Amino acid sequence: MKTKIAKLLDGVRAESPLVHHITNYVTVNDCANITLSIGASPVMADEITEVGDITSISSALVLNIGTLNQRTVASCKAAGKKANALNKPVVFDPVGAGASRLRTDTAKELLADIRFAVIRGNLSEIKQIAGETANTKGVDVSEKDASDLNESIFTAKAAAQKYKTVIAVTGKTDIVTDGERVLLINNGHKMLGSVSGTGCMCNSLIASYAGVTDDHLLAAAAGLVSMGVAGEAAFEKAGENGLGSFRIALIDAVSRLTPAQIAQRAKIDEA
Amino acid sequence: MKTKIAKLLDGVRAESPLVHHITNYVTVNDCANITLSIGASPVMADEITEVGDITSISSALVLNIGTLNQRTVASCKAAGKKANALNKPVVFDPVGAGASRLRTDTAKELLADIRFAVIRGNLSEIKQIAGETANTKGVDVSEKDASDLNESIFTAKAAAQKYKTVIAVTGKTDIVTDGERVLLINNGHKMLGSVSGTGCMCNSLIASYAGVTDDHLLAAAAGLVSMGVAGEAAFEKAGENGLGSFRIALIDAVSRLTPAQIAQRAKIDEA
Amino acid sequence: MKTKIAKLLDGVRAESPLVHHITNYVTVNDCANITLSIGASPVMADEITEVGDITSISSALVLNIGTLNQRTVASCKAAGKKANALNKPVVFDPVGAGASRLRTDTAKELLADIRFAVIRGNLSEIKQIAGETANTKGVDVSEKDASDLNESIFTAKAAAQKYKTVIAVTGKTDIVTDGERVLLINNGHKMLGSVSGTGCMCNSLIASYAGVTDDHLLAAAAGLVSMGVAGEAAFEKAGENGLGSFRIALIDAVSRLTPAQIAQRAKIDEA
Repeated sequence: MKTKIAKLLDGVRAESPLVHHITNYVTVNDCANITLSIGASPVMADEITEVGDITSISSALVLNIGTLNQRTVASCKAAGKKANALNKPVVFDPVGAGASRLRTDTAKELLADIRFAVIRGNLSEIKQIAGETANTKGVDVSEKDASDLNESIFTAKAAAQKYKTVIAVTGKTDIVTDGERVLLINNGHKMLGSVSGTGCMCNSLIASYAGVTDDHLLAAAAGLVSMGVAGEAAFEKAGENGLGSFRIALIDAVSRLTPAQIAQRAKIDEA
Repeated sequence: MKTKIAKLLDGVRAESPLVHHITNYVTVNDCANITLSIGASPVMADEITEVGDITSISSALVLNIGTLNQRTVASCKAAGKKANALNKPVVFDPVGAGASRLRTDTAKELLADIRFAVIRGNLSEIKQIAGETANTKGVDVSEKDASDLNESIFTAKAAAQKYKTVIAVTGKTDIVTDGERVLLINNGHKMLGSVSGTGCMCNSLIASYAGVTDDHLLAAAAGLVSMGVAGEAAFEKAGENGLGSFRIALIDAVSRLTPAQIAQRAKIDEA
Repeated sequence: MKTKIAKLLDGVRAESPLVHHITNYVTVNDCANITLSIGASPVMADEITEVGDITSISSALVLNIGTLNQRTVASCKAAGKKANALNKPVVFDPVGAGASRLRTDTAKELLADIRFAVIRGNLSEIKQIAGETANTKGVDVSEKDASDLNESIFTAKAAAQKYKTVIAVTGKTDIVTDGERVLLINNGHKMLGSVSGTGCMCNSLIASYAGVTDDHLLAAAAGLVSMGVAGEAAFEKAGENGLGSFRIALIDAVSRLTPAQIAQRAKIDEA
């Protein structure tokens, strides 16, 4: 698996896939820069009269409801359907599902209308999607939700099976599953949880990888391993300086990430 | 006062209050990261059909009209009323009041409809709100307006009394007043005025503190002292490198801010 | 020309012109900070009921369709017409013209309705505007389009003559032309192409300069030289650290840019 991910990184850098984002305005700049850093090319477009065109020229699509509104929800639906029609992978981040009725309902609607390659979220969000009772705290995972790994795996598998997709749960141990296979990733650093947008940036990485492979389980794992390994490198470089420097070092680390580094540092196991 | 602020910082880190922001898209990422850096948790949501839900689960609300539009002004009103109904503190930043009729009128409407815990602005904006003649330069304070401290205090007190709120005026000397007591804060560095969003970030800090105390004068002072002390530390660390590094060092400094540092460096006096 | 640019930098810092931006939400924070770094003052406002007021108090206007939508396109038109009526310079960035019908059509409409002081884009975008066949890749230039300098100059001159404006094409060699004179700028570093928003930041720099001179060819050249020289300094300082650090060093370098540095490092020639 490590070797496959390492190779896929070369693939992203060789092909530089265009990744269409409809994402929140809080972390959109980080998404753009992380996409460039991994070697892909970002394009952000959320106007309904152009999302079809932009999805058509892109290799992958990210839908993120972090600052959803009625206008952009309609655009998400249109772009997602277009991507499905053209068989392009769609990565979905149900930010804050459970935190408001609108987010919960919108997530459900998108799940009903669109076939996702990968859904990435924290455990509270994935629980919500799986139809379990979640303990959302705004857009962050609640502590209650993050405690038991076996339970979390069960939830992730159930969601993957329900929606015939790959589920990627980010947390202390990341979980990636297609409903049958389960990969556990133990890279990263807890400081990643204190920087705004690290989840959103994972979406961009996953979509960049999904832009060059049809193996969505691999793409999701590659995205999370890349973020995790970069997070470790960033902490070593700048963690002691504080959150601002750590965030910049994270983008540095993704831009300098090498296949060899992934092969050496990835901690990924099949459950 | 220093000791109280130092204790309150511990309180924010212990409780990690959720802070709902309806704020401009220019500096929203900085607001998110400064909120995390002080130890609170940010959530940004501006869609009118969900702001009530989000305010309900939050400990404080920030309203900032930096890039207002008709859609988000309506959301500000709805969220502000909800926060008032639930007795949650609302921090208001009348960005650019005076620079356009829309901003001036919107500020007035919000002031008529919503009870604010704290209103923070530069002196041009606070003058505008107090009903005095101001000399706005876009979203920055005009030089004419920033000259006489005693006049500024008079203006701030008048605005605080008029709106039964705490007024926080940021400038060379920060002024915090509830209409009776007046606190003067002499921390900070002039470089803060050359980085976009330092005012907006103050709102986030004030709201984070207001999320854990009912003493809004204290919360406002705590927010400005925190920014001021962090600004000094950031300048010492990175000021000579330039504005980009200074901004990153500022977020670093907030994330590393300690009660001891506040007790040692805060320059706060009762006028 | 070098001497003129160096003097103009002093002019920006002395006058601190207010620059009104209607720009995309991806890189808007970078635009604000680069505007402050060069010594000007940014204001972002895109609500149609206030753009007239904001343009009226500003010295220059930037229109950028990077994340256009129906609401903001109308605001661009209103602000552009107001700026024309008041004889204030307007800088236009047709981001992604050619990537969607909406972008192509919007660029045409804006070009029909508004007189621009400077239009800045990559070669794919400028070709699109000139009415030639372009090979857009999202919002980035396609490799096919960036190959032949003489052809590129021809395209830029044609576009400048067609729209009676100054065209600024950013690339390996930047081209600035008013349809007669052609300036070639060989500053910069290829890393600038891997950071989101360096094009948008050029718009802000050009508009800052255009806010203090009526010579729009000079203003465009000054903006691109400033970015190029700063890019070189940033690479020397932080290029090896990665893209995150390079981006911060870029803002640092603009904030520390001196007339002497421009006089010494600018590589600008008349073709």
